[in-house]
Amino acid sequence: MEDPIHQEQASPAVHKRIQDSFDRQGLMRHLGARITHIAPGRVHIVLPSRPEVTQQHGYVHAGATSAVADSAGGYAALTLFPEDSEVLTVEYKINLLAPAVGDHIEAIGTVLKSGRTLTVCRLEVYGVQAGGERKLVANGQQTLIRVNRPAP
Amino acid sequence: MEDPIHQEQASPAVHKRIQDSFDRQGLMRHLGARITHIAPGRVHIVLPSRPEVTQQHGYVHAGATSAVADSAGGYAALTLFPEDSEVLTVEYKINLLAPAVGDHIEAIGTVLKSGRTLTVCRLEVYGVQAGGERKLVANGQQTLIRVNRPAP
Amino acid sequence: MEDPIHQEQASPAVHKRIQDSFDRQGLMRHLGARITHIAPGRVHIVLPSRPEVTQQHGYVHAGATSAVADSAGGYAALTLFPEDSEVLTVEYKINLLAPAVGDHIEAIGTVLKSGRTLTVCRLEVYGVQAGGERKLVANGQQTLIRVNRPAP
Amino acid sequence: MEDPIHQEQASPAVHKRIQDSFDRQGLMRHLGARITHIAPGRVHIVLPSRPEVTQQHGYVHAGATSAVADSAGGYAALTLFPEDSEVLTVEYKINLLAPAVGDHIEAIGTVLKSGRTLTVCRLEVYGVQAGGERKLVANGQQTLIRVNRPAP
Repeated sequence: MEDPIHQEQASPAVHKRIQDSFDRQGLMRHLGARITHIAPGRVHIVLPSRPEVTQQHGYVHAGATSAVADSAGGYAALTLFPEDSEVLTVEYKINLLAPAVGDHIEAIGTVLKSGRTLTVCRLEVYGVQAGGERKLVANGQQTLIRVNRPAP
Repeated sequence: MEDPIHQEQASPAVHKRIQDSFDRQGLMRHLGARITHIAPGRVHIVLPSRPEVTQQHGYVHAGATSAVADSAGGYAALTLFPEDSEVLTVEYKINLLAPAVGDHIEAIGTVLKSGRTLTVCRLEVYGVQAGGERKLVANGQQTLIRVNRPAP
Repeated sequence: MEDPIHQEQASPAVHKRIQDSFDRQGLMRHLGARITHIAPGRVHIVLPSRPEVTQQHGYVHAGATSAVADSAGGYAALTLFPEDSEVLTVEYKINLLAPAVGDHIEAIGTVLKSGRTLTVCRLEVYGVQAGGERKLVANGQQTLIRVNRPAP
Repeated sequence: MEDPIHQEQASPAVHKRIQDSFDRQGLMRHLGARITHIAPGRVHIVLPSRPEVTQQHGYVHAGATSAVADSAGGYAALTLFPEDSEVLTVEYKINLLAPAVGDHIEAIGTVLKSGRTLTVCRLEVYGVQAGGERKLVANGQQTLIRVNRPAP
């Protein structure tokens, strides 16, 4: 299916700002997550299935699923902020719809509403098989707040 | 402050069932989390602050905070289930109230309503300083479903 | 914009079942809400702006917005259930994105995942001006449970 | 059970400010709700069971339950704000735990965290029998934002 939004790319400056911030997230590195797409208002993060991210039945743990979804939404919001801003998660809600099986999961954060102070994102997580088959395994909604970056 | 609920302990059988399941959660081990208290309808999980669980500002990542909160609620529900049952998270919502700083965070899952099919838990996460000072850093609410354990 | 889903209609039997149930909801009648579209997995409910449904600033009250959103999601789920089933809301989460102004609001409930026991819906509420201009004023996510209808 | 918080009262000025705002909420009047207690950070609202607030099974509609819970939380937040402030609901999540039966329901909004911009409240709704027996029928969590009151 054609997906024009997926093709769109953020500017190199925004791309670098997001990637630099992501690289400072110890948790994302520790889990093995990586950003795969940065568009204005939309960020994709991929997390390979490994024993280090599972729950007791061998599926990806809801906590790992949520962690990458939360990061995807946070960075989606950040793509639309002025350069001197940071983003903090206020809250999110996520439904775990199906066991998160597959070769990897892909979390997609998409800005639904971008306000001066608050931003609301949709969070989607897909389980992706090695052959490319995708299934929605989690769906959520997130509220974020823009804060001024503290002076260095 | 005295906390009678904190003193209460689950039976040895329940304690073992919870601990065994927790030990099979690759994510919890990978993050460095451990169960510190198992009471009927209430489970505590502690996560030490380490670079491996941080976000870009050095605080514990909302995803790590949520992961241990989700596990604490899930196991709190499981303490009240018959032996042949498993628990799955249906959904949860969590507010990040303050930066999760401190020596470690402690997540407490408490059953609010235990039904035949669905259980609802309250999730609380405290940032705990080395000196013992505690601050509520996240608060949430979770819905879980009881499922029959698949035959071995 | 063309919207093929909007054109689709539920069967007359499903249509009647939903409408009959809706007509027994004292609250919907009291608020002045009416169902305007019933498709498989999707229901629209319209609520005219009147002083009886406002909050202190004269906008539609978040509680009224939520009430019609909750009903739209519940009936969207019900369209996909066997005839002898009822639906109960387990929980929902809703973000109020903008003041709910306009001639009326339109709530759209859409099934995201339909399971044997649980169903998850997306909830959207638009403020609609007399001229037809629409704005998303609320967005949410809802979990519902299917229960067998008690014998009459 | 003794409840010292229940005894505490907001100042007459705060009491008047909350009651005046509540009286301007057309929805609360239309539903038949009334404020029964205003303490710093805690507000109680009672809604009598009437056919006008029911769903299809004759219980209080989840939408009516949510509406009074949302208002209770909003006013609980407002009790702690400076006089020239207004409050808006950012989002809330509510679990419907049991059928809302009884003579009336009582919604209690309690501030969990009061920040400069955002406030987080716990929402509880009890079904209360004519004899005084109480049962928790809904439990939720709400995020609110403080806004400056527009000049008159």
